[in-house]
Amino acid sequence: MTNILAEQLNSITKLSEEEVLSIEESFPIKTFKKGAILLQPGKVARDSYLVIKGCIRKYTLEDGDENTLDFFIEGDSAADFNSLSSNKPSIFYFVCSEETNVAVLNAEKEAMLYKKYPRFETICRVEFEKMMGEKIAGIERFNALSPEKKYLDLLKNKPKLIKRVPQYQLASYLGIKPETLSRIRKRITQK
Amino acid sequence: MTNILAEQLNSITKLSEEEVLSIEESFPIKTFKKGAILLQPGKVARDSYLVIKGCIRKYTLEDGDENTLDFFIEGDSAADFNSLSSNKPSIFYFVCSEETNVAVLNAEKEAMLYKKYPRFETICRVEFEKMMGEKIAGIERFNALSPEKKYLDLLKNKPKLIKRVPQYQLASYLGIKPETLSRIRKRITQK
Repeated sequence: MTNILAEQLNSITKLSEEEVLSIEESFPIKTFKKGAILLQPGKVARDSYLVIKGCIRKYTLEDGDENTLDFFIEGDSAADFNSLSSNKPSIFYFVCSEETNVAVLNAEKEAMLYKKYPRFETICRVEFEKMMGEKIAGIERFNALSPEKKYLDLLKNKPKLIKRVPQYQLASYLGIKPETLSRIRKRITQK
Repeated sequence: MTNILAEQLNSITKLSEEEVLSIEESFPIKTFKKGAILLQPGKVARDSYLVIKGCIRKYTLEDGDENTLDFFIEGDSAADFNSLSSNKPSIFYFVCSEETNVAVLNAEKEAMLYKKYPRFETICRVEFEKMMGEKIAGIERFNALSPEKKYLDLLKNKPKLIKRVPQYQLASYLGIKPETLSRIRKRITQK
């Protein structure tokens, strides 16, 4: 089994060879270069992305300033579900922060797969609910923290991210200026 | 059609009488008194709630302090999807801020309904994705605002909420002390 999605589904329900093949054909693995734009404001999302290796950043541009909303690394699903399911133009950028290897989940192919194998729809619906529950709880928890506590939280829970992402992007994710982030880092190192 | 869920589904796909009856039987309408606890930390969620009339508040207790994370009013779905779909104990309180009339969506009954009418599963999956996309974008947008801008945002987008909810709960939702909220209100009235 070469496909990460087939592996994930197989860990929940035993798959036949034919099913594995269907999944592998429906959701190809692709590599995007650093800086590749997966989605941008005004475009309607058609795909979501399961990150196998790499990093995708979600942000908005407001008066020329980037406002970083999320980073998606190994194992994360990156998508604008609002645009995907309502066919509305996105308001977000989804851009690869580094060379990124993903499984591409096209919405139409997903619907076709569910039609062919209805039990996949049930499994994926429940998994999606779980993922969204965790996501919302994670955002609420993170947002309630001070910038310094947010940084400590990332150090603890996403240490990989801190090392890989440019400082100005990390600062924008924490809602602070890069200078403030430098001061926080210095303070923490001295402790 | 007396059931709000049957009405919503019927607006997307024409329902037969038998289907309407199934939905009405599966998801009863209930009224909870002000202060009724729908979910609390340590309990596993079994139901989600579609608010017909009233208000449900989601909060955590941290060192005796209430941290208000969300309010659900008419048309909103209140649920801990993380607890619901992974059978993990919740970390949240969901409590009725006033007498609240809801459609109760029990997870097992939902699964049974989808088994009987697979097209409902597809419709509800897509609607859920849309709802979650909007929810996450809403939380991200709201959290990026200053407390004063958050208050102005609520005044504009959820004017009903401001009138109905006790000031200390509203202040906790904005992440500020009740005194600070009073100052913000005074400043806005004077403008």
